[in-house]
Amino acid sequence: MKTIGILTGGGDCPGLNAVIRAVVKTAHLYDYTVIGIRNGWKGIVEGEVEPLTEFSVTGILPKGGTILGTSRTNPLKSEEQTQQMLTNIRKFGLDAIVAVGGDDTLSVATRLHQMHIPVVGIPKTIDNDLSGTDYTFGFDTAVAIVTDAIDRLHTTAESHHRIMVLEVMGRHAGWIATMAGIAGGADQILIPEVPFDIEDVCEGLKKRRERGKKFSIVVIAEGAKPADMTGFATTSSKVDDFGHEQLGGIGHLLGRAIEERIGSETRVTVLGHVQRGGSPTAHDRVLATRYGVKAVEQLHEGNYGVMVALQGDKIVPIPLSDAITQKKVDPELYEMARIFY
Amino acid sequence: MKTIGILTGGGDCPGLNAVIRAVVKTAHLYDYTVIGIRNGWKGIVEGEVEPLTEFSVTGILPKGGTILGTSRTNPLKSEEQTQQMLTNIRKFGLDAIVAVGGDDTLSVATRLHQMHIPVVGIPKTIDNDLSGTDYTFGFDTAVAIVTDAIDRLHTTAESHHRIMVLEVMGRHAGWIATMAGIAGGADQILIPEVPFDIEDVCEGLKKRRERGKKFSIVVIAEGAKPADMTGFATTSSKVDDFGHEQLGGIGHLLGRAIEERIGSETRVTVLGHVQRGGSPTAHDRVLATRYGVKAVEQLHEGNYGVMVALQGDKIVPIPLSDAITQKKVDPELYEMARIFY
Amino acid sequence: MKTIGILTGGGDCPGLNAVIRAVVKTAHLYDYTVIGIRNGWKGIVEGEVEPLTEFSVTGILPKGGTILGTSRTNPLKSEEQTQQMLTNIRKFGLDAIVAVGGDDTLSVATRLHQMHIPVVGIPKTIDNDLSGTDYTFGFDTAVAIVTDAIDRLHTTAESHHRIMVLEVMGRHAGWIATMAGIAGGADQILIPEVPFDIEDVCEGLKKRRERGKKFSIVVIAEGAKPADMTGFATTSSKVDDFGHEQLGGIGHLLGRAIEERIGSETRVTVLGHVQRGGSPTAHDRVLATRYGVKAVEQLHEGNYGVMVALQGDKIVPIPLSDAITQKKVDPELYEMARIFY
Amino acid sequence: MKTIGILTGGGDCPGLNAVIRAVVKTAHLYDYTVIGIRNGWKGIVEGEVEPLTEFSVTGILPKGGTILGTSRTNPLKSEEQTQQMLTNIRKFGLDAIVAVGGDDTLSVATRLHQMHIPVVGIPKTIDNDLSGTDYTFGFDTAVAIVTDAIDRLHTTAESHHRIMVLEVMGRHAGWIATMAGIAGGADQILIPEVPFDIEDVCEGLKKRRERGKKFSIVVIAEGAKPADMTGFATTSSKVDDFGHEQLGGIGHLLGRAIEERIGSETRVTVLGHVQRGGSPTAHDRVLATRYGVKAVEQLHEGNYGVMVALQGDKIVPIPLSDAITQKKVDPELYEMARIFY
Repeated sequence: MKTIGILTGGGDCPGLNAVIRAVVKTAHLYDYTVIGIRNGWKGIVEGEVEPLTEFSVTGILPKGGTILGTSRTNPLKSEEQTQQMLTNIRKFGLDAIVAVGGDDTLSVATRLHQMHIPVVGIPKTIDNDLSGTDYTFGFDTAVAIVTDAIDRLHTTAESHHRIMVLEVMGRHAGWIATMAGIAGGADQILIPEVPFDIEDVCEGLKKRRERGKKFSIVVIAEGAKPADMTGFATTSSKVDDFGHEQLGGIGHLLGRAIEERIGSETRVTVLGHVQRGGSPTAHDRVLATRYGVKAVEQLHEGNYGVMVALQGDKIVPIPLSDAITQKKVDPELYEMARIFY
Repeated sequence: MKTIGILTGGGDCPGLNAVIRAVVKTAHLYDYTVIGIRNGWKGIVEGEVEPLTEFSVTGILPKGGTILGTSRTNPLKSEEQTQQMLTNIRKFGLDAIVAVGGDDTLSVATRLHQMHIPVVGIPKTIDNDLSGTDYTFGFDTAVAIVTDAIDRLHTTAESHHRIMVLEVMGRHAGWIATMAGIAGGADQILIPEVPFDIEDVCEGLKKRRERGKKFSIVVIAEGAKPADMTGFATTSSKVDDFGHEQLGGIGHLLGRAIEERIGSETRVTVLGHVQRGGSPTAHDRVLATRYGVKAVEQLHEGNYGVMVALQGDKIVPIPLSDAITQKKVDPELYEMARIFY
Repeated sequence: MKTIGILTGGGDCPGLNAVIRAVVKTAHLYDYTVIGIRNGWKGIVEGEVEPLTEFSVTGILPKGGTILGTSRTNPLKSEEQTQQMLTNIRKFGLDAIVAVGGDDTLSVATRLHQMHIPVVGIPKTIDNDLSGTDYTFGFDTAVAIVTDAIDRLHTTAESHHRIMVLEVMGRHAGWIATMAGIAGGADQILIPEVPFDIEDVCEGLKKRRERGKKFSIVVIAEGAKPADMTGFATTSSKVDDFGHEQLGGIGHLLGRAIEERIGSETRVTVLGHVQRGGSPTAHDRVLATRYGVKAVEQLHEGNYGVMVALQGDKIVPIPLSDAITQKKVDPELYEMARIFY
Repeated sequence: MKTIGILTGGGDCPGLNAVIRAVVKTAHLYDYTVIGIRNGWKGIVEGEVEPLTEFSVTGILPKGGTILGTSRTNPLKSEEQTQQMLTNIRKFGLDAIVAVGGDDTLSVATRLHQMHIPVVGIPKTIDNDLSGTDYTFGFDTAVAIVTDAIDRLHTTAESHHRIMVLEVMGRHAGWIATMAGIAGGADQILIPEVPFDIEDVCEGLKKRRERGKKFSIVVIAEGAKPADMTGFATTSSKVDDFGHEQLGGIGHLLGRAIEERIGSETRVTVLGHVQRGGSPTAHDRVLATRYGVKAVEQLHEGNYGVMVALQGDKIVPIPLSDAITQKKVDPELYEMARIFY
């Protein structure tokens, strides 16, 4: 093996650059050439690549985003694109590929492996919901950003005796809401894994008020849902990013429902894209670096078709196919958070 | 004079606790007693007060919010409340009052001054739009938070080749948008003072793309408006915090308008309440402290009916009545920002 | 069991307040009373205690330090103090004790357990060098602070083409140096576990310079030592905190040795106490909270004489006696860091 | 005029890159070419220059340090170097020079102006001690870093009932110590402008302890001196960065003197180079940007031999020769800090 291609796919995530740097530096140790593929699988289909040298990765360790760009293109959806991808892999002389991404990105890697092209996957999901690995990089940074936001909202909630609702990322799993909720001292945490009862939530908030606490913080994952939509703002609507109406904005729906039931002034904040940007935490930089190093070591050892994963305090290879299921929040951890309501 | 009452009114703002601490410490230097009035003017109407000792203000300097609580109650709107206020001022033996707040809070102070009750005002507006003073505390902190958000959005914008729209505070003046826009390197800054032309904005973004820049950041103050609403999403709507539909969310309207015209993927973030919470910057702590010290010195010198203000690098007293007009963004500064588009 | 005493001993550490809050909240869930013992074991000897209510622990989650105070007093060193401790445990009606601390603090807990007093230990060492547990709280915060310092030093090193030496905590183990060194992109990392050869270090720095890198960052743990002191500034000396001369300041010795051998301008920074102060990271707040909850659960279940420990992603009880050995840096992790030199 | 040279001299400082970016972008607006001179005046003597394009300055706004490098070389000290400088200015076709630096760097600019070479100066001193301008960029960032350190030390001081001494930058003026001391709530602030009496300092700390405050924070500028060295550790010594003994380390001397007099455990931290590194605050980015824009405008208007300066909220040109004196801390501000001891 002489030349390794590397790409980053899906949503951006703090730590991607640390992975890229680690792959390049480790590959150079073994005298491999590294080719950066731009914008995920799209780049290999369209032939947008560039050599990555030590100079290319100087100073990128603390930077958010990805110097390679990213996209959600999945070439398997078109026979033509699949062929173009295979042609370009040959054309650019890529002997192996390191694919960094989530379910979708890694499913293409799995397919390439089945076609006998050497690949190694590196898991990436800011939501921490990929099975097989204890933690994914970027997650700690997102939790840190959300915790900082909760700290800030606390002072306003306290000064105005308000209920503050904070909607955070987590479409299918509530890891960010749970971890940041515990770290920030949230008074209710609502996640997709556990459909919530609006009356229970309000009951909890009222009891808190009766204990003399004049404010409350509610953290809700974007994918959380009420167990029963009856009487829960079913007629309400929300505009999407571009003004199109749609049902949704669970944070706003929740804020309205709480205000109707409790009467306390309620304010809603939707953190959005700031959760996935900016410099990674030290923790994520180390994790991302370890993933990058281990991935190249797998290629060097001829151990293809695997994904590197964190298990305990070790980075280990697991079959790429194990990366598909969604990992739910540990119920014990979620239950523990209730002690602090 | 023996006893000073202090209250904080209006929206909370980083630095309020630094003001309270400075007032208490300076008052003690002159052997005055300090009484904290809870929740703005509401507290004096309802008789909710507490003595403030050195112990009360220990450790509050770096804390956001206000230990006194705040409200938007204006007792002048009811004759009964006005009388109750005057009665309680006598009842609690308040010889003078330090009122910390914006237009509305200070208008009550002005009225009290006319009734020959010794008052001194301390200006508070996170938007920095109070005339008479160069800067208000809390503003620097808000600018820092927004700048940090722009830094984070940059990495996502760059990785995904997107246009990111960031809606920030500023209903009547665009200080936060302008300052943070310059500090964060925004590619368009839209403020209430200068109605924008959506075609011009998109023209600017397109030219930037033609120069090889694959992403852009647009910062828009919540009070910014298009010069011409024609063809600008007039039929669109937005739900408010509690699901009620309303026209608005200028950030979302703008995002939609840009995407329609340019075709680049556009994402909108509305920062919301995190902008006014959390620990004040060093700059704001110093400014708030200086205001608090100067306010008590005015009372000590018998100089009533004034507001303390920053002019150049000095804190000076100005008539309370000068605090009413809204201060607009310096056009020269706003023009300068265009150099970086 | 009705009443639980809690104390924090040894050096302060971000997350101690999160532990205290978690112990109090969990104890209240089971209807236990909690008594705070001031200043470590000293407080129980001298009878300085106070009840801890929900009110006592409000708002302390994000705060550094410990509201209980701490000390290094070890009552086992004096028969009189040991007796006084036992007397006061009875006097204050303490049915069980939660001891938060390192080797020394926990050795007293172990002795109490042998005397049939119900105790549970919570491990605390900012250096992460306690065996039995994967990670200790406070460590992630220290690594974050050191990484931030490395990021800052990078800009100066780069602008001035200098070698910057950063001395960090770690008397017996180099965890902080290793983790922060990887996260910050250090060009040499020196730790107590691996005696260093000054010539090798300089050789590495020279090679880096020959590759066109005009600056370098060297991170050294305070307990790191050269394999051979010959020719290594043996005559040098350093004043301690109060001006008394002593051999030492390995950071300064190293800086001098490098400058003598390489000729590049070298600057030394000793981070000191800022590494252990301030608000804990979200990661540490969660870990500390989980420890606190689990400790009370052990008491509730009658599982005495144990220490709670993180293993993988679970908190588990282990025998207090397992907490004694010092945990060294994982050699694989340390070796990995060399890839980036 | 067609081509502008720009250089950064002296110690690095957060905001230098913001200045460089502003100069390049503004120059391009007027269709000037910009040449970057590497490593201060050294670069023009040695002929190390590079063209600066829009691409060169992309993404540097939030970065600390200077992409141009810096040095303390003063070519006026050698006739040969002076000639070489003049030759290279002609050789590279520089029609004007923007010099960013302190006293020393600007003195060369002044000399060039006298030789009829068009120059404009931009003041740079992290210590804020340059007269003619209200504030210099980098200063706000340094104050923010020191304030953060004080916040961190507070938690340790409080938990251990200690006195913490923090030595900060400020050889000739105590601006950083004063501002950060006020922002961090220091209990004593010692600066070069006001020689201190060690007995007075200790008297203040003792009184504080008698009021029930069990800890204290003392901030001292590196250039602060006792009024009377008698009995003040004259025999003590300190090793410099490379192990050479020298009198000094006022922080360590002070710590020892306090401990001898008060008996409280005292710890000393010397912050060092981290104070001048890393990403500039929003405030400094705006100030640096305004300086850069204004400097090019002066060149464009043919207004040579000036330095741009902040006066009130305006950037104005002042004669380069006015930049020489050292600006001392405002006595009123310093006195105000005593209220909080």
